[in-house]
Amino acid sequence: MSIRDRVLGKPLATSEERGEQIGVAAGIPIFGLDALTSAAYGPEAALSLLIPLGMLGTTYILPIITSILILLVIVFFSYRQTIAAYPNGGGSYTVASENLGEGAGLLAAAALMIDYILTAAVGISAGVTALTSAVPSLQPHTLAFCLLILAILAVVNLRGVKDTGAAFILPTFLFIGTLLILIGVGAYKTFAAGGHPVPVEAMPPALPQTVKFLGLWLLLKAFSSGCAAMTGVEAVSNGVMAFGEPRAKKAQVTLTVIIAILIVLLYGTAWLSKHYGIMAMNPDATGYQSLLSLLVTAVFGRGWFYFLTMGSVLLALALSANTAFADFPRLTRAIAMQDYLPHVFILRGRRLLFSHGVYALTVFTAIILILFGGVTDRLIPLYAIGAFLAFTLSQAGMVVHWNKQEAHQGRAWHMFVNGIGAVATGITTCIVLASKFMSGAWVTALLIPCLILLMHSIKRHYSRVHNEMREMTPLNLSNLEQPLVVIPMAGWNKISEKALRFGLLLSKEIKVVHVHSEDESHGIEEEWEQRVLVPIREQGMTDPELVTIPSNFRFIISPLMDYILALEEEHPGRKVAVLLPELVVKHWWENALHNQRVQLLKLLLLVRGSQRIVVVNIPWYL
Amino acid sequence: MSIRDRVLGKPLATSEERGEQIGVAAGIPIFGLDALTSAAYGPEAALSLLIPLGMLGTTYILPIITSILILLVIVFFSYRQTIAAYPNGGGSYTVASENLGEGAGLLAAAALMIDYILTAAVGISAGVTALTSAVPSLQPHTLAFCLLILAILAVVNLRGVKDTGAAFILPTFLFIGTLLILIGVGAYKTFAAGGHPVPVEAMPPALPQTVKFLGLWLLLKAFSSGCAAMTGVEAVSNGVMAFGEPRAKKAQVTLTVIIAILIVLLYGTAWLSKHYGIMAMNPDATGYQSLLSLLVTAVFGRGWFYFLTMGSVLLALALSANTAFADFPRLTRAIAMQDYLPHVFILRGRRLLFSHGVYALTVFTAIILILFGGVTDRLIPLYAIGAFLAFTLSQAGMVVHWNKQEAHQGRAWHMFVNGIGAVATGITTCIVLASKFMSGAWVTALLIPCLILLMHSIKRHYSRVHNEMREMTPLNLSNLEQPLVVIPMAGWNKISEKALRFGLLLSKEIKVVHVHSEDESHGIEEEWEQRVLVPIREQGMTDPELVTIPSNFRFIISPLMDYILALEEEHPGRKVAVLLPELVVKHWWENALHNQRVQLLKLLLLVRGSQRIVVVNIPWYL
Repeated sequence: MSIRDRVLGKPLATSEERGEQIGVAAGIPIFGLDALTSAAYGPEAALSLLIPLGMLGTTYILPIITSILILLVIVFFSYRQTIAAYPNGGGSYTVASENLGEGAGLLAAAALMIDYILTAAVGISAGVTALTSAVPSLQPHTLAFCLLILAILAVVNLRGVKDTGAAFILPTFLFIGTLLILIGVGAYKTFAAGGHPVPVEAMPPALPQTVKFLGLWLLLKAFSSGCAAMTGVEAVSNGVMAFGEPRAKKAQVTLTVIIAILIVLLYGTAWLSKHYGIMAMNPDATGYQSLLSLLVTAVFGRGWFYFLTMGSVLLALALSANTAFADFPRLTRAIAMQDYLPHVFILRGRRLLFSHGVYALTVFTAIILILFGGVTDRLIPLYAIGAFLAFTLSQAGMVVHWNKQEAHQGRAWHMFVNGIGAVATGITTCIVLASKFMSGAWVTALLIPCLILLMHSIKRHYSRVHNEMREMTPLNLSNLEQPLVVIPMAGWNKISEKALRFGLLLSKEIKVVHVHSEDESHGIEEEWEQRVLVPIREQGMTDPELVTIPSNFRFIISPLMDYILALEEEHPGRKVAVLLPELVVKHWWENALHNQRVQLLKLLLLVRGSQRIVVVNIPWYL
Repeated sequence: MSIRDRVLGKPLATSEERGEQIGVAAGIPIFGLDALTSAAYGPEAALSLLIPLGMLGTTYILPIITSILILLVIVFFSYRQTIAAYPNGGGSYTVASENLGEGAGLLAAAALMIDYILTAAVGISAGVTALTSAVPSLQPHTLAFCLLILAILAVVNLRGVKDTGAAFILPTFLFIGTLLILIGVGAYKTFAAGGHPVPVEAMPPALPQTVKFLGLWLLLKAFSSGCAAMTGVEAVSNGVMAFGEPRAKKAQVTLTVIIAILIVLLYGTAWLSKHYGIMAMNPDATGYQSLLSLLVTAVFGRGWFYFLTMGSVLLALALSANTAFADFPRLTRAIAMQDYLPHVFILRGRRLLFSHGVYALTVFTAIILILFGGVTDRLIPLYAIGAFLAFTLSQAGMVVHWNKQEAHQGRAWHMFVNGIGAVATGITTCIVLASKFMSGAWVTALLIPCLILLMHSIKRHYSRVHNEMREMTPLNLSNLEQPLVVIPMAGWNKISEKALRFGLLLSKEIKVVHVHSEDESHGIEEEWEQRVLVPIREQGMTDPELVTIPSNFRFIISPLMDYILALEEEHPGRKVAVLLPELVVKHWWENALHNQRVQLLKLLLLVRGSQRIVVVNIPWYL
């Protein structure tokens, strides 16, 4: 077993595809981690904008979370319907391009690609940030840790979707389990205390109240911040193909389970923070703790359960980047199938997945992590816009979709649900873009049109190639004329002989070209006469022509190129076959001992040649 | 005029060679700078070892310099004779290998190559050190300055020998002129003062006398240090080819002029330092000045002449690296002519010089400068051993040479002179090696055998290639059988058609190979029947065979390779021509949009193929 097989797994035959398909239990970690872990930061993101209100903020948290949850449910129903309608994978790209046209599809594609890359980068950097705040001495190595986790994720994902699911099941269920226990025990204590529970340990002092006024803008910003909790919901609909049959059913169940758990986690933490009276802390304050950390401390104190919960949160956050790895390659494949991305994204690698998508995601995520130094806070403003843009386009697409299904029952209701969703997510997109524009969202807003332009030019290229190569006519056998053969020859030796023998097979018209530099004392005329012409005439074959080109400037390549191009021009319609004898050495370093002119000539012939020039490599093994 | 032409000069035709040949005036800067500038540091190198003796040291300087000069004169006569005997360039390498055998020749070659590289590095770093001691704020940029000067020297030398001479004449004659004036005026003042001149300005305080005892070892070390003044003397004999006719005569005159000036400069400075009572200073002492600086101050004071003299010394030192550039390419060419170095060193570039030698020298000098941080002191111990080893071998070779010339008049005298020289330089080599071994000469002692081993293995490779390729027999026309043609085909399109048309010209036996992955729904059987076989049968031609290989693991390349190698094995003695259609894109980035399988297949066929597999590239231009 080679090292490669050990690390990446043995190659899988195409017929083993069934075995690589997953069920609901594996689907939750693979497609759900991104959505679920947002429960760990969504409520805090909303609450932290309400810090200026002091303890008053907690009274607003339930209405805000509730409105987010309503939006989430709308989006959930929309995607459930999408899965049923597009059982071969119906990400926003597919839905938008099929129902709203190419332009909308590409907009969704660009938005989603950027968002997946950011999902990977944010997930990894959030996990590492959590780690470095626990062990501050690791801080200087933040970027190195980020890249290490990225590499591990890439390798695990290259082993295939089944192995990934198996590896991530335990951390995911640990994360879900600890949070559910937290909410359950917290709720029980609250009811037992008549609605006013007392924290097990003393909380840090409340922050000073500076502002009492709650503006609409602040509420909207808190709402749009909390919406970060919704990213990752589209993941399942994009990856329907990964599930075993009945595909759509399994995907729908997976999505339902994920959303149900997410709702419980989001509402539960918000409800607890209100009843325990716990407010988010300013991240810049000394002794800062995350909202989750405060909640667990309040309910359980700092015992072993605290560390188990916090550890599972860190792990789940780092692994949430995996959702991007699960979906990005499927998305790029869907785009490449429409010729908008290089076709390599369509190829399935040794383990039956679209390996080039994994490579691309890894490289781009690494670039983002390096550019931003692995700091989560700098990445967040760029994030979520892409996801909401894709939500909006997907649901608007679904409205059009239902409109077309005239025979479908309950079509009006479906259209209404998706319409509400489209309007809600559309407004949210605007709010998110406006509130984050100056702090970094402009980068995303700039990248999206650039990506669309790039995809358009790729499509143009493929269309041109396709049109030029399309062969609807049968094989044309007219004008099958022997090519003109050109053989460059420095002197008479075994390599030249091999080339000449091959040339004689090819054609009766052979030009042997000798570039004669004044540095050399003798040409090859004498040997030519004796060793070549005599035996050829004995056999009664046609004489090859010896062409000697003097080179005053000791150049070899350019007189040869000039001769070949002139020959091609003089004989319109004829093919010119250039025979290049090539020395193949045993060890790479031996190449330094031989002139690499043949390589240069090959390259020049390819670049400056035309349809009618064919290069024949005659290898000579040492 | 292109930028390249502007920087490096227009290409020179081989017939313009005459115009590139130089006379005595250009020969002095080109081949003499290295030898001449040693007058600036030779006497000081000897004196500084006598510092422990205090002022007493100056009384020993004249005997030491005199013995060095005697050695120099012996070497001079030897090389004069060598030039006459080897008018096509008789460096130590040529003389040693022709007279003492291959082993001695390679020893001289290795020693000289290392010494030339060190000459370039030491010259440049000495110049920059002089500059940075004048302007200490430039100190941190020492290495950058070194590399800049190296680059300038490389470019000037790539313009050709004539331009180099022209550029360097002025600094060389300025250097010689100012030193001659210094010696002349100093001598006049000494005689006018009755042998006891008074310095114009006060000298720095004399250093304390610590040791009164003068050991033989100290004297020998002073002598071997002073011998650094002799490096560079072999330069002219190596470069005889650069001179115009009468070549040997002009080279001899050049050598004579260089040695005569060198003797005057060396003896003059030593004589002045004795009569002015000026001792070398400890380089680590504060307020350190070079011996030359002290001498000029004593004779002229710190006026404009002081700065003119010191400036010309700095410039000449930096340019002395040029001697290496003049000789190294000629040396590597001579070695490559005997197959001991890659043949590229034989090629003459656009400006009629051996450009690859210039490239190699530049690269190795840069490596040395970077490794040693551009610090002269660290380089000096490695230096001079190579030169003296080469001197010894060259003169021992000349002894053998004279021994063979039985008819030559005065042969006994010549032998005696060269014999004395060989013994003297041989002893000097031992002294230099012993006294510098621990401080760095071991590096050189280690590098020389490594280089010799490398040259031997290069020679072995060339001999093998030469033997394998030598073709003494006439063209063999038996067994001219049509090749088996293999055409990989993914689908039927214009590129496939072009390849098939060419294949039909080549042979009647064509195997079209289609690797069928289970990912694809349809094969090419149907199109094959309709579009290919029908027209071929209409014309009554032989059917090509369609071979479909199923690929369970979606690999394309390896089933193809396996098929081709198996086909080759099944048909011993037959040639297999693999036709590879290749898409040539207009812009390099478009390559990313197309599978690079053809490139990989080409490489694999070259590496794993055999003599009987020929690759035919069928280009298709987009």
